[in-house]
Amino acid sequence: MAPHPFRTLTVEETRIARDVILSLHRDVVVDFREIYLQEPEKELMKQYLALEHAVQPGQSPASKQPPRLAKCQYDVIGPDRIPAYHEAVVDVQTKRRVKYEIIGKEHQASLTLWEFQTLLQACKESEEFQKAVAEFKLPEGFELVVEPWPYGGLDYETENRRYFQGLCFAQDTRNGNADSNFYAYPLPLIPILDAHLKKVIRIDRLATGGKGDSLTGKTHSERVLDHCQSAEYVPELLPGGTRKDMKPINILQPDGPSFRVTDESLVEWQKWRFRVSFNPREGAVLHDVHYDGRSILYRLSMSEMTVPYADPRPPFHRKQAFDFGDGGAGNCANNLSLGCDCLGVIKYFDAVVVESDGEPRVHPNVICLHEQDNGIGWKHTNWRTGRAVVTRLRELVVQFIITLANYEYVFAYKLDTAGGIMLEVRATGIVSVVNIDPGKTSEYGNVVSGGVLAQNHQHIFAARIDPAIDGHNNTVFYEESHTAPWDEKTNPKGNFYEIRKTFVDKSAGLDAAPEHNRVFKIMNSTKINPHSGNPVAYKFMPPPTQKLLAQPASIQAQRALFTQHHVWVTKYKENELYAAGRYTLQSQKEVGGVADMAKRNDSVKDEDIVLWNVFGLTHNPRVEDWPVMPVDIFQVHFKPSDFFSANPAIDVPSTKNNSSILVGKECCSEKL
Amino acid sequence: MAPHPFRTLTVEETRIARDVILSLHRDVVVDFREIYLQEPEKELMKQYLALEHAVQPGQSPASKQPPRLAKCQYDVIGPDRIPAYHEAVVDVQTKRRVKYEIIGKEHQASLTLWEFQTLLQACKESEEFQKAVAEFKLPEGFELVVEPWPYGGLDYETENRRYFQGLCFAQDTRNGNADSNFYAYPLPLIPILDAHLKKVIRIDRLATGGKGDSLTGKTHSERVLDHCQSAEYVPELLPGGTRKDMKPINILQPDGPSFRVTDESLVEWQKWRFRVSFNPREGAVLHDVHYDGRSILYRLSMSEMTVPYADPRPPFHRKQAFDFGDGGAGNCANNLSLGCDCLGVIKYFDAVVVESDGEPRVHPNVICLHEQDNGIGWKHTNWRTGRAVVTRLRELVVQFIITLANYEYVFAYKLDTAGGIMLEVRATGIVSVVNIDPGKTSEYGNVVSGGVLAQNHQHIFAARIDPAIDGHNNTVFYEESHTAPWDEKTNPKGNFYEIRKTFVDKSAGLDAAPEHNRVFKIMNSTKINPHSGNPVAYKFMPPPTQKLLAQPASIQAQRALFTQHHVWVTKYKENELYAAGRYTLQSQKEVGGVADMAKRNDSVKDEDIVLWNVFGLTHNPRVEDWPVMPVDIFQVHFKPSDFFSANPAIDVPSTKNNSSILVGKECCSEKL
Repeated sequence: MAPHPFRTLTVEETRIARDVILSLHRDVVVDFREIYLQEPEKELMKQYLALEHAVQPGQSPASKQPPRLAKCQYDVIGPDRIPAYHEAVVDVQTKRRVKYEIIGKEHQASLTLWEFQTLLQACKESEEFQKAVAEFKLPEGFELVVEPWPYGGLDYETENRRYFQGLCFAQDTRNGNADSNFYAYPLPLIPILDAHLKKVIRIDRLATGGKGDSLTGKTHSERVLDHCQSAEYVPELLPGGTRKDMKPINILQPDGPSFRVTDESLVEWQKWRFRVSFNPREGAVLHDVHYDGRSILYRLSMSEMTVPYADPRPPFHRKQAFDFGDGGAGNCANNLSLGCDCLGVIKYFDAVVVESDGEPRVHPNVICLHEQDNGIGWKHTNWRTGRAVVTRLRELVVQFIITLANYEYVFAYKLDTAGGIMLEVRATGIVSVVNIDPGKTSEYGNVVSGGVLAQNHQHIFAARIDPAIDGHNNTVFYEESHTAPWDEKTNPKGNFYEIRKTFVDKSAGLDAAPEHNRVFKIMNSTKINPHSGNPVAYKFMPPPTQKLLAQPASIQAQRALFTQHHVWVTKYKENELYAAGRYTLQSQKEVGGVADMAKRNDSVKDEDIVLWNVFGLTHNPRVEDWPVMPVDIFQVHFKPSDFFSANPAIDVPSTKNNSSILVGKECCSEKL
Repeated sequence: MAPHPFRTLTVEETRIARDVILSLHRDVVVDFREIYLQEPEKELMKQYLALEHAVQPGQSPASKQPPRLAKCQYDVIGPDRIPAYHEAVVDVQTKRRVKYEIIGKEHQASLTLWEFQTLLQACKESEEFQKAVAEFKLPEGFELVVEPWPYGGLDYETENRRYFQGLCFAQDTRNGNADSNFYAYPLPLIPILDAHLKKVIRIDRLATGGKGDSLTGKTHSERVLDHCQSAEYVPELLPGGTRKDMKPINILQPDGPSFRVTDESLVEWQKWRFRVSFNPREGAVLHDVHYDGRSILYRLSMSEMTVPYADPRPPFHRKQAFDFGDGGAGNCANNLSLGCDCLGVIKYFDAVVVESDGEPRVHPNVICLHEQDNGIGWKHTNWRTGRAVVTRLRELVVQFIITLANYEYVFAYKLDTAGGIMLEVRATGIVSVVNIDPGKTSEYGNVVSGGVLAQNHQHIFAARIDPAIDGHNNTVFYEESHTAPWDEKTNPKGNFYEIRKTFVDKSAGLDAAPEHNRVFKIMNSTKINPHSGNPVAYKFMPPPTQKLLAQPASIQAQRALFTQHHVWVTKYKENELYAAGRYTLQSQKEVGGVADMAKRNDSVKDEDIVLWNVFGLTHNPRVEDWPVMPVDIFQVHFKPSDFFSANPAIDVPSTKNNSSILVGKECCSEKL
């Protein structure tokens, strides 16, 4: 039997797809970028899932399985040595290519990590670059480190060639530790690399001035690192070592976890049931999310994020990453190791990635799954009898962590015992810094250490929510609370406030409005709550975070049109997964992103719809963000709203936890 | 040696205060309400603390201790039998009354729980009320329950007598369980009680209509509970019992906690050092909060909250509680029991309360203190070497929980390893409901179960932050991020955004502005961060929650002027602790609250200042909030902003937790 349609492509399936592609390109070099599951068409999946959920325990599923498809992305290198980017879909059961497209020069494929190796080699081989570096007098024992970055939005160039920029630092090698923090020693030059030519084609010189200095122009001496300071974070290099008085907190689950994972994809936990998969672009994805046999979501994913920098000195306007579209969040996922990234009883999921020769390789432990306690879930004390009933809020966490050069993001989907679904993002890692002259401060960032300017920037995320509230046809409306006019008949004491509902009829971008307590609800208009008489729904309040600040006509803003609104509602269309469009690397404008989808002005009432939530952080760094930043935490909460007929956690047991103990007095618990 | 000046009054000290008061009122009856610590004047404490912190380990503190003072609140009942409310301050060392005031009839003392017993007795004895109840045909085995509530803001009355209102329900006694949920059976009448006369003085009849029905007028039959449904929450009464598949998560701290508590008030943990006290009005209070020897806060407390209801049908406009001023959050604090309200190694603190005869009694376990893990604290993976350094975010939690009739609040102060201070409120318990006719729905709330209308309402909280950022004189400013004009010289690519600072010169009320990323900073202008050159500061982003919705001229709004702004900055003045003023019970207008403090137009630049943060929840109930509501969680985060010279958590060890285990595959950890 073939794997479940939502299951991540196996090593064997990946290899079949690779072989099919190679067999079709016999006389050229094929450089693979990605091979991953092309999810089945939704219409097929609706039929498949309807049957799957109708199957009784013990019965075998009779439903016809949609084809297992592999999306293959690769460069074809012909005699001219300039690669052409191809995308194909291979049916791994029939071993046939079922879709094929040569992508035009106007788009760039996502980057791969092995591309970076070529770039580093090119830097080494570039005389011009080596000469530029030699203009600086590095302190004794310091060595150059080049960190490849996407090139940002094209603006000088007439031709869309494949460029990268290399941020330069120097590493103190005297301690013999390869993890000595080189970001503390930024060098003010950026080699520009042509990835196809494998050559440094230009060197950008960076201004290092402060307030009052011009945007360009050299103000530094050749001893540009002399005022920089060591900023280590690996424990063995900390001058004072680590603190000694933090005692362990151990999370034990003596009876094992409450979840069950079967088929390496199906998760069942506390009435929840969903599939989890992993792909190179979005990382972990949840599918077909049910609670107590009722459908809530068809699919949930992080879709995109952009990180524009606000330093106006060219070429810093080109510091703008799209961490899902440019490099692939899944590609950058960490191997999560036991006992550090999460506690308790942990289930890891692996991914399959390909090398440039298309050979699949298991990328281990990219997702972790575990349960956790999040404090009190509900409580009531009857003051007459003194009887308190208190239950815990238990959460199931699906987590993945990505590293993008200097920076880390921790993404988690958290399902809870009260029917809630939470999206959490933690931002951490090392802030992006540039050199600043001694004694100067800047309007473009904060001086977090000697010679180190942490530039102001934003992080703006887009989550994609494909709802299926008791069925695939849903409707979105928002509800606001407003002061009601004073009126002898309807509001005689002035205390009444009215709830106003606004339905979203056509695909559109909409905004948060906390001043009106604006709450978005996704409802199924055909299913009515037996108590309230309202259609069953899930609700969320979009975090009213600041939108993109770059000028609307700037390239930064144009390539991130998805940042214009907090909420988008679009009609479902096959293959529309990415908020900033399919191709973001070196884009000048968002094409086929959520703004374009919304522009179709589709009817979205009682239709198969998709919701997008955009939220973020304007990050003007603190000194405390250096050298590694404490997590900044963002959460978006989706909660049932007249979906159930009572608190779904009312049957959570209020058992005392007997492993807790008292400090400072005799213990009063029955059992320890 | 006397207890530390911030330590909660002991039983002995309380008894001395009581005796002093009794000795001064020999020929009358004295009914005590509260006796609790009157904190020393700040000027005295500044001197005391300066010396205390200057003492070297081993040295004994030479500082002169401020007097230990007891605030005594009591009714004096003379021959006319109408109590007069007195407030006095007693020096428990000299055993002398040092301050004395008879409070005028325009104010009402906070309520006490024993007052409620009198009211329940009065209901039983009222023929008129019993007749009113008998008008309903209660189902077999149902018995009346009266729940006393504050009377809300006076509006009909010309005289400020001491009133309470009794919300009426019926309890199904057939199951023989005293914790059967009577809120599921609301009766549409409210007896109004005079607490001094101890009599029912009026009976308000409640409308039970729905959409289209008039605000007054009877629409129900005598069988008003027949369409109501059982809604139990105690486990033994749940029709399906509790779920069986939730396996334990045990938190073990084999080496004990990392904190140390001495003198029943001084807490030391992970470079933090502070005092904790408890009083009947505010509950737990933090004092003299330091990190690594540096002062951050003088005092941190929850100051007030108001819960106005939006149902326009009189007398529901009088449903408006001030849960700190009316009843006292400390008075309503739960006895927190082991293993339910928190997990791990727990230290409890007791409070001292007085009975009406002034006899002190230990109110045990009102505060709990424990450590917890809050996921990843910071992480960085060096993609070149593959080395990941990941640390946990550890928190110290000071928690108390209050029950106000049907409703619960969980308040927590959380200090973390990255120098952060978080205020958390969880709202849970049973939503306030009234009877609604069969088959009807309402614009005033949501029908959450048969016959049960959960009325729309708000919860608006005020936290009081008395900062001492590296000293007592501080300044507040807010910082916003704004799109900068496109300009060839200063913003040639349109990506620059500028940071604008606005200083708060005079005491004022201010608002959240998430669209501008408005961040408030509390700084010490005389202490400069060595790296950034900025004054040392702590920052917070006020949650932009909806303000009070009642008409500005309504009594609901007038008595809660503190809800007009998200942030208030006032100059410190002795005894100004309460956002809605000293007396809230039956108030018609906020007097002496934060709006009045701000009106003084004091200079607040480089002064001893106080910050107030107002946040809340517009709560339009869901069916899922019934019968006990899953927690709604609110958090306000205070973070160092150029206060430290680097991430203060950089020295947190990145030790693997060896108690974590793998599920589903062989284990790869060194030690289990």
